[in-house]
Amino acid sequence: MSQSTKATVEQWGMFELSLVGTSQGNPFVEVTVSATFRHEHKQVRVTGFYDGDGIYKVRFSPCLLGEWEYWVDSNDGQLSGQFGQLLCTTASGDNHGPVQVVDNKRFAYADGTPYIPVGTTSYGWLHQSEELQSQTLQTLQNSPFNKIRMCIIMNDYGNSEPNGFPFVGSREAGFSLDTFDTAFFARLEQRIEQLQAMQIEVDLIIFHPYDKGRWGLDRMPSEADDRYLRYVLARLSAYRNIWWSVANEYDFMEHKQMADWDRLLQIIWNEDPHRRLSSIHNGTKMYDHASVKLYDYAKPWITHCSTQHWDVSLVTQWQKQYNKPVVLDECCYEGNMERRWGNLSGEEMTRRFWDGVTRGAFVSHGETYLERSSELWLARGGELVGDSIARIAYMREIIEAAPAQYEYMPHVRDVPSIGVEGEYYLQYYGLHQPIFRYMDLPEGSTFRVEVIDTWNMEIVAVHEGKSGKFTLDLPGKPYIAVKMTKVGE
Amino acid sequence: MSQSTKATVEQWGMFELSLVGTSQGNPFVEVTVSATFRHEHKQVRVTGFYDGDGIYKVRFSPCLLGEWEYWVDSNDGQLSGQFGQLLCTTASGDNHGPVQVVDNKRFAYADGTPYIPVGTTSYGWLHQSEELQSQTLQTLQNSPFNKIRMCIIMNDYGNSEPNGFPFVGSREAGFSLDTFDTAFFARLEQRIEQLQAMQIEVDLIIFHPYDKGRWGLDRMPSEADDRYLRYVLARLSAYRNIWWSVANEYDFMEHKQMADWDRLLQIIWNEDPHRRLSSIHNGTKMYDHASVKLYDYAKPWITHCSTQHWDVSLVTQWQKQYNKPVVLDECCYEGNMERRWGNLSGEEMTRRFWDGVTRGAFVSHGETYLERSSELWLARGGELVGDSIARIAYMREIIEAAPAQYEYMPHVRDVPSIGVEGEYYLQYYGLHQPIFRYMDLPEGSTFRVEVIDTWNMEIVAVHEGKSGKFTLDLPGKPYIAVKMTKVGE
Repeated sequence: MSQSTKATVEQWGMFELSLVGTSQGNPFVEVTVSATFRHEHKQVRVTGFYDGDGIYKVRFSPCLLGEWEYWVDSNDGQLSGQFGQLLCTTASGDNHGPVQVVDNKRFAYADGTPYIPVGTTSYGWLHQSEELQSQTLQTLQNSPFNKIRMCIIMNDYGNSEPNGFPFVGSREAGFSLDTFDTAFFARLEQRIEQLQAMQIEVDLIIFHPYDKGRWGLDRMPSEADDRYLRYVLARLSAYRNIWWSVANEYDFMEHKQMADWDRLLQIIWNEDPHRRLSSIHNGTKMYDHASVKLYDYAKPWITHCSTQHWDVSLVTQWQKQYNKPVVLDECCYEGNMERRWGNLSGEEMTRRFWDGVTRGAFVSHGETYLERSSELWLARGGELVGDSIARIAYMREIIEAAPAQYEYMPHVRDVPSIGVEGEYYLQYYGLHQPIFRYMDLPEGSTFRVEVIDTWNMEIVAVHEGKSGKFTLDLPGKPYIAVKMTKVGE
Repeated sequence: MSQSTKATVEQWGMFELSLVGTSQGNPFVEVTVSATFRHEHKQVRVTGFYDGDGIYKVRFSPCLLGEWEYWVDSNDGQLSGQFGQLLCTTASGDNHGPVQVVDNKRFAYADGTPYIPVGTTSYGWLHQSEELQSQTLQTLQNSPFNKIRMCIIMNDYGNSEPNGFPFVGSREAGFSLDTFDTAFFARLEQRIEQLQAMQIEVDLIIFHPYDKGRWGLDRMPSEADDRYLRYVLARLSAYRNIWWSVANEYDFMEHKQMADWDRLLQIIWNEDPHRRLSSIHNGTKMYDHASVKLYDYAKPWITHCSTQHWDVSLVTQWQKQYNKPVVLDECCYEGNMERRWGNLSGEEMTRRFWDGVTRGAFVSHGETYLERSSELWLARGGELVGDSIARIAYMREIIEAAPAQYEYMPHVRDVPSIGVEGEYYLQYYGLHQPIFRYMDLPEGSTFRVEVIDTWNMEIVAVHEGKSGKFTLDLPGKPYIAVKMTKVGE
């Protein structure tokens, strides 16, 4: 038996093939289904998934315009042999495609539009009340953030019992690790779609150490880990705003070895038909520099570094060591919590953003205010009340206005700097408070020189027509940046 | 021919034996003179020096009370064979003896009085006008500092021509590297004595890289280096407030190899009869952590680490690695200069002090204010105008009131802490701004808990009678310390 369908989907959009098959036995483990999509010389095999009630789905996001054909393979005779055509049309609206790595240094959407990650973190916002989730979405809509780190599996903050798990079951009764909760995934997908509509990338955390045996999902047999990971890949990979973060603070997961992380990351690398960005995020005792043991981000199945450290300047050596973009996904959070990772001032959170960005890396935010806010943003979402938010928005404007191909300029002395030689320079002075700086711009071009107070979010001086060597007066206070833009020959 | 003298000197004071010998030829290189001092089973051979005009001196600082005898050896018959007695009496006034290392972690004077280095740096103050030198001494007298780093040889800041060199000669005419300028040394000695009277240790820098070929004293033949070093040892070692810093930023001295530093430090170690504290101070490009190559402070002829780095937290790994006290002699300076090492805010200079000290290390200060001050303190001395001075004084009071045997407590989570288990705890929160802290003091004792605003220099809360587990309210702003002192059982 075969069925022919003809569908239209825009480039980097999602085509969902929905098929009816058996609901006997446990289709999650007993039925295999995939579709192979072909476009001229390109062919992609996409694994499908069981969505309950005898429904099987295959999700595919085409990267090439024009005609695709596909056919279904399955060990279920009802599914196997079905085929059809797909017309991939030009992307519309804000659809720039998935984010990809460019030049081992930076990111851009598939259509070439630059993408500079300005991320935040809210691990458990999916597991809160509908009302609170709506508030979180509203907050994100009005925030400077274009990426969010969030967990599939409930973490240990917030509700005592989360409103859903990837698996059928409960804490009391235990979980059926071979039976997925399709309604839970449907809710997750709705959020991914809403974030996509806001142009927010989802840095999705698949495993984490915060279970601590409560639900046992941090210590499943590797067979169950692999099955869960593959189900996640099959369901979610076709969303163009998905990034894989195989684990948060992987080194705090006592029931996993380094070989497990290699295996899981290799499954993503080998089996994700859309090759979404993929990384792993370290925890590690951070007091002693020497004790920070990072996953080897040079491994080929890692697309970028997704690191944690309070010392932002380390991004420079990671860039050299791994030759991949560095996203410092945690450098402590703004707030006033008891723990050191959650009680930075707004000034310091902002300083870490600027410091990382002017080293050619990218920095992620988090907020953990007690009293000042009714929820911990980091854990549950809600509102953002921190002092760094407005400053991060201001920084994002500046950095997005820079030439897309800007690079870290290690030869600029004393201050972290990015730029394009002869065209554009952005220096950040951080805690330093000089009252002047010797500048040396190329002769033969003229530059606009702007002195920026990054904390008060204002340009405090503009000098037009600068060229060659000159002395630039500076305000003699912290948190100053200097931007120099070529304006003429 | 022989001469017998009988003298009295207090313990750790200086006995100077002055002898008349030949002034023919070049006595600096041709005449050897030493005296051997004997006290019961202890015998110390002390090399003397030529002081011009046929006068030879041997300077000795006795460490044991009671009778000493001595006799002179020389290749000059006039000097050789002289002998005498010395009565070493109890130290008086502020004389606590030289500073020594205790328990591989800290310092104390020879009489057991604790000494906590709270140092500053003024490289070239000796080379300024008499008036400015007097002002510098006055400033030091009123400052919180009990140690100063200073160069024997003029550095490249300040006067274009220094008022003196260790060698006879001039920039134009060249220097006689085998003829020392005894008047220059006499002036230096006067300053050392004045500082001793103020209870200020002199961390004396013997070589430095700032000559850059101007006077050529950074590139002398090793024979001349060794002769200069031995002359310095012979003249100055008997001053109990002398510490040897064989070089400042040794790694910036392009004409020297690591083997030279080993050789020079071994000369000090083997030939300094008083075994003063001895170390070497690194420079090094500091942007990339990985590039900091330190001298191996584990070598036996190094008494303590005298390091430079902007990242104060590194002291923790150096303590482990070298098992010696760590003095972070440069972590950038407060000021508003152009260069990154000289434009920290007062807040940040103060933070670095507290951070280092609560890691069980010691931190040195420097000040480099343009406009706000008529001189650069770091280079030339003068007045201190920085915002950190008063805060460093406040910190010194607190740290000197701590139990002398305090240690770094690496097990205290989240914040650097020192203390004595069960007796005393001092935590520093730095840039972190928690609104509370879970405390866990020993049961069975009661403690006074003080919340200290280190920037505003006030105790903002005192809680008496605390014991066991409790939650301590904190102000939710940066620069807070918490001190907990046992007051009862």
